[in-house]
Amino acid sequence: MEKLYFASDYQEGMCEEILECLQKTNRIPTSGYGTDEYSEQAREKIRVLCDAPDAEIHFLSGGTQANKTVIASILRDYQGVIAADTGHVSLHEAGAIEYTGHKVLTIPGERGKLSADALDQYVSMFYADGNHEHMVQPGMVYISQPTEYGTLYSRQELVQLREVCDKWKLPLYVDGARLAYALACRENDVTLKDLAHYCDVFYIGGTKCGAMIGEAVVIVNRELVPHFFTSVKQHGALLAKGRLLGISFNTLFTDGLYETLGKHALELAEQIKQALRTNNWKFYFEAPTNQIFVVVDNETLKKLDQNVVYSFWEPYDETHTVIRFATSWATPQEDVDALIELIRQYKR
Amino acid sequence: MEKLYFASDYQEGMCEEILECLQKTNRIPTSGYGTDEYSEQAREKIRVLCDAPDAEIHFLSGGTQANKTVIASILRDYQGVIAADTGHVSLHEAGAIEYTGHKVLTIPGERGKLSADALDQYVSMFYADGNHEHMVQPGMVYISQPTEYGTLYSRQELVQLREVCDKWKLPLYVDGARLAYALACRENDVTLKDLAHYCDVFYIGGTKCGAMIGEAVVIVNRELVPHFFTSVKQHGALLAKGRLLGISFNTLFTDGLYETLGKHALELAEQIKQALRTNNWKFYFEAPTNQIFVVVDNETLKKLDQNVVYSFWEPYDETHTVIRFATSWATPQEDVDALIELIRQYKR
Amino acid sequence: MEKLYFASDYQEGMCEEILECLQKTNRIPTSGYGTDEYSEQAREKIRVLCDAPDAEIHFLSGGTQANKTVIASILRDYQGVIAADTGHVSLHEAGAIEYTGHKVLTIPGERGKLSADALDQYVSMFYADGNHEHMVQPGMVYISQPTEYGTLYSRQELVQLREVCDKWKLPLYVDGARLAYALACRENDVTLKDLAHYCDVFYIGGTKCGAMIGEAVVIVNRELVPHFFTSVKQHGALLAKGRLLGISFNTLFTDGLYETLGKHALELAEQIKQALRTNNWKFYFEAPTNQIFVVVDNETLKKLDQNVVYSFWEPYDETHTVIRFATSWATPQEDVDALIELIRQYKR
Amino acid sequence: MEKLYFASDYQEGMCEEILECLQKTNRIPTSGYGTDEYSEQAREKIRVLCDAPDAEIHFLSGGTQANKTVIASILRDYQGVIAADTGHVSLHEAGAIEYTGHKVLTIPGERGKLSADALDQYVSMFYADGNHEHMVQPGMVYISQPTEYGTLYSRQELVQLREVCDKWKLPLYVDGARLAYALACRENDVTLKDLAHYCDVFYIGGTKCGAMIGEAVVIVNRELVPHFFTSVKQHGALLAKGRLLGISFNTLFTDGLYETLGKHALELAEQIKQALRTNNWKFYFEAPTNQIFVVVDNETLKKLDQNVVYSFWEPYDETHTVIRFATSWATPQEDVDALIELIRQYKR
Repeated sequence: MEKLYFASDYQEGMCEEILECLQKTNRIPTSGYGTDEYSEQAREKIRVLCDAPDAEIHFLSGGTQANKTVIASILRDYQGVIAADTGHVSLHEAGAIEYTGHKVLTIPGERGKLSADALDQYVSMFYADGNHEHMVQPGMVYISQPTEYGTLYSRQELVQLREVCDKWKLPLYVDGARLAYALACRENDVTLKDLAHYCDVFYIGGTKCGAMIGEAVVIVNRELVPHFFTSVKQHGALLAKGRLLGISFNTLFTDGLYETLGKHALELAEQIKQALRTNNWKFYFEAPTNQIFVVVDNETLKKLDQNVVYSFWEPYDETHTVIRFATSWATPQEDVDALIELIRQYKR
Repeated sequence: MEKLYFASDYQEGMCEEILECLQKTNRIPTSGYGTDEYSEQAREKIRVLCDAPDAEIHFLSGGTQANKTVIASILRDYQGVIAADTGHVSLHEAGAIEYTGHKVLTIPGERGKLSADALDQYVSMFYADGNHEHMVQPGMVYISQPTEYGTLYSRQELVQLREVCDKWKLPLYVDGARLAYALACRENDVTLKDLAHYCDVFYIGGTKCGAMIGEAVVIVNRELVPHFFTSVKQHGALLAKGRLLGISFNTLFTDGLYETLGKHALELAEQIKQALRTNNWKFYFEAPTNQIFVVVDNETLKKLDQNVVYSFWEPYDETHTVIRFATSWATPQEDVDALIELIRQYKR
Repeated sequence: MEKLYFASDYQEGMCEEILECLQKTNRIPTSGYGTDEYSEQAREKIRVLCDAPDAEIHFLSGGTQANKTVIASILRDYQGVIAADTGHVSLHEAGAIEYTGHKVLTIPGERGKLSADALDQYVSMFYADGNHEHMVQPGMVYISQPTEYGTLYSRQELVQLREVCDKWKLPLYVDGARLAYALACRENDVTLKDLAHYCDVFYIGGTKCGAMIGEAVVIVNRELVPHFFTSVKQHGALLAKGRLLGISFNTLFTDGLYETLGKHALELAEQIKQALRTNNWKFYFEAPTNQIFVVVDNETLKKLDQNVVYSFWEPYDETHTVIRFATSWATPQEDVDALIELIRQYKR
Repeated sequence: MEKLYFASDYQEGMCEEILECLQKTNRIPTSGYGTDEYSEQAREKIRVLCDAPDAEIHFLSGGTQANKTVIASILRDYQGVIAADTGHVSLHEAGAIEYTGHKVLTIPGERGKLSADALDQYVSMFYADGNHEHMVQPGMVYISQPTEYGTLYSRQELVQLREVCDKWKLPLYVDGARLAYALACRENDVTLKDLAHYCDVFYIGGTKCGAMIGEAVVIVNRELVPHFFTSVKQHGALLAKGRLLGISFNTLFTDGLYETLGKHALELAEQIKQALRTNNWKFYFEAPTNQIFVVVDNETLKKLDQNVVYSFWEPYDETHTVIRFATSWATPQEDVDALIELIRQYKR
């Protein structure tokens, strides 16, 4: 039996529609650096979907790159970015934010989420501290939708965060690396239009959502980041062949493909979660999107290893481990069936 | 008549062999971040071609990104990088090097080339200056092959630069953004093996040489840049889907494709140069690779504009302009024929 | 009644011996940038006291400046500095370390101290994490002696930290902003020679210990920070009139003045602590050096405000506050007597 | 015979008036970080002299420090600072500006001066370049008064620079490290009020003009650099004992002392220049302030070496050298007399 891959949502190539478009357009010459017509069409479609006719849109090639370029462009030197302690920028970007000179100011999150109250309290305490001029000033807020734990902010939670941001004059930035898996989720009530309405900048993830590669940075508050094109270049993030990213996003935002791909992953994830429940596996916690966190005893894990590629998450206790299964736009139904069969086999 | 595109070597998609391989492998899951088998195979092929079995190889997605990540990783804080004043790092990377905290120390180049003598004199004068501890220490040397002007270093010139580098203990780094067009050139006597022998680090360009995107950074002197993987991540330059770059380079270095693509561009460039000579057009200067610099009077330029997309280079005088035609792996013979017809039409 | 100043140890000018020396030498011309004879003499005295004949010594003008220059010079780009979460570099330097591109990796401290066990566990867990190449590598360890809470590392604790540092190849750096108040302390068994023996770099604080201004950075492991002079210049930390710092340290290390000044502060601190105990004031915790942390109810605080200038530390609960009294080389006995009188007056 | 020191204007301690004030105030406790009353008095005096009642004033401890903190605070990430190629920031600050992430954009100066025409042409050409969004945007202008060559901008030249700055929306910053020697100069027509009127930020030099140490940064355009205090801290440039700088500047700006000190240096410089002229020594060029550049044959230089400490400037030709004599607030008349005697002795 071939191994079953549930390790991540970036383990396959790209959705076939993009591949086809790459082929069709391959020999058509275009201008570089994102000035091509495919990129322009993609931008226009995103603007319409976001109901943000004046938004500035740039295509970058990866999430860490998008985060560091956006964050460094928003902040002044004496400012830092507030994030949940589990935020991708806090932990797993090798100090990319600090490398641009800025501190990540962490607040304990709840399953990856930053609450409006915790944020308000943090900033209040900062300004109440008589020595705050000796400390890094909070300059913006970073959240991710869905979070690194697959959880979602509700529309109301987003509105509340926005209110606290307005109170303290903090720009709000949303990392949407897996946004397709939020938008397609039944529990979700935050639309692209909401993101455009309540955030200053956000990015729509491509790499993990069926694009070849690429993330679409949507700048709603344009005065906040003048000359972002030059910053993108300065960060080494400007692709000469911007067309590749343009083609990816133009395809993803034609005929609702982006949400279709997200829905596929979520349906398969639901089947797996159902099987886990039925067979009494222990969830680390339940999250509504395409990432599934389970606590497995290490004996079972060894058996699982023979057939499944999953993500190690963290040790749970001496004899158990937290692992992650991720479905994606590319996950085949038969792999899910086979995984469910294994879940039954190792029922608790 | 459709326009003829001679603006650059990154205006089309990718060579068909890579497209095919993308299709064939599209649904095969792999691990991320360059640990996939395609990347591993590509690395092995490059090691063999370079006769550098211990070289460490990383695939990055663009030239500025490769330059800033390598240069910042080699230098200590108090050091700068020496480059010709026309070097890409000196001018057209939006301060990407300075953004990492390092000064670019420029020396006047000759048609893009840095001479061993000029280098030796520069460094000698630095250390002769009684105040040199108040100044940025030269910490490495950056050259490009071919240069931004399409010129080539000979093997002997490379050896001489290496000797000066050894004299002053300066690592040597070569930017090979257009390396295919050097390797395939009749006038060229610098092989991949020579680069691996005489440089500490160099990169083999993909973006401008037929790959989808990507540059292969070859680290021969591994002690110089420990933990380069982490640095790549920190610079936002690590692709989750490293497989895409692996597939590109694995294909380019199978059956000599990289040189074949280069040769195609050079043959067509030769046809154009021949036509320019025959019809008395004025070269800005003659360079042996795929970039052709000509001086055109502004009247002719207006007519040319109707049919040809070229690169504006710089004003020559009040009534003339320097422009660049570039051929590439993708240039069709019929476009060259049509361009030559125009060259005849506007003969001097 | 004039106010009593116990706010900090940098509220007066400088010890009279230095003032006298400034006067005597004022019109003698010297060379700049720390190459003067006073600086050279001070270096030599420090080398002897540290039993470190090969140590390189630089005089900088402040603690944050010393910390950022040393830390940035030791670390490679992909590395961060480990510190207790209460470390001065973690909180109160306005992101000075991050501004140099490096993350501060915090470990919960115990009353300001970092334990060898906690350090070992942190680094072990880092290397045990399969994704550690995506994270900032621990590159050095920062501690302070005495700590920001006035506590002291014992010689044995220092040796244990060194062992963990050796195990993980981590340089050890000690911030000695208030070192005089450690060296003169009865509870202390860590000498200058120990610091030179067990650390790679440390600094001997002047600003808070009776110097005009200045911190003496002692580099024992010289290979670790080549060309530190240039780094000092690059950080804007090189004084043209280095003589001023040289005169300060040359005086402080003549006839044991540095310890004499420390002893003065500690004796007065002991008198105050005794009075606090006798009169049942509540210590936040007891620390052996010149900083005294007490918990005061807010009613008493209001009365105290009329006569005493102290440091606000943090709220304790709704009705109490933690405040700090600091004695210094300059504190007059009569001010201590007056403070003790107030302590009696507001006895619990 | 003792050696005659004409090497620089920072080779002695400080003017006696400051020393006296240090003594008188030594044991008076003050609050730290520049919030003391001496600093406040100094600020108020400078505001009055500059006719800039709303200016924000910070005291930093050195020129490189002031330059890097101001420049990094004004610029956005994608911008660089324009300076003459001989500007102190371009050459002799060990890459301090680049270390903050910004490129120094150099324009050839004329004897250290940047002309309004050259500036206008440079910026015009930048915006005319079709690729300028790939390049570092000019973000501000740096000049020094007097320049590194002792030359002066006239009021009209300053006005013209301001006009070009306004045209391109560029803040103008003046480095006044030796400002006393400009203000006291007969040829000078640029007052403190003019600087405050035509610049956005400038600094009044103390270190080279009789202060102990220190430079007074005057921020006229306050919106340009919000939270400068935090930036000063972040750059490691905030002195705990800000009182020392406050005392220096409060004294210098009482009873016109700053100009008196400058005048002393200029009168002695005039005597030396007169002697050089009379005895046919060759000026490298004549500058109106306290720095005197002469071309000396190497034979004479050897003899001079026995009696005089001067600054080596640069080789002139195989047999001649350019050297610099500097007078200062501290130069004794008898040393000038002795130097003049030597000038006569070695007359041409």
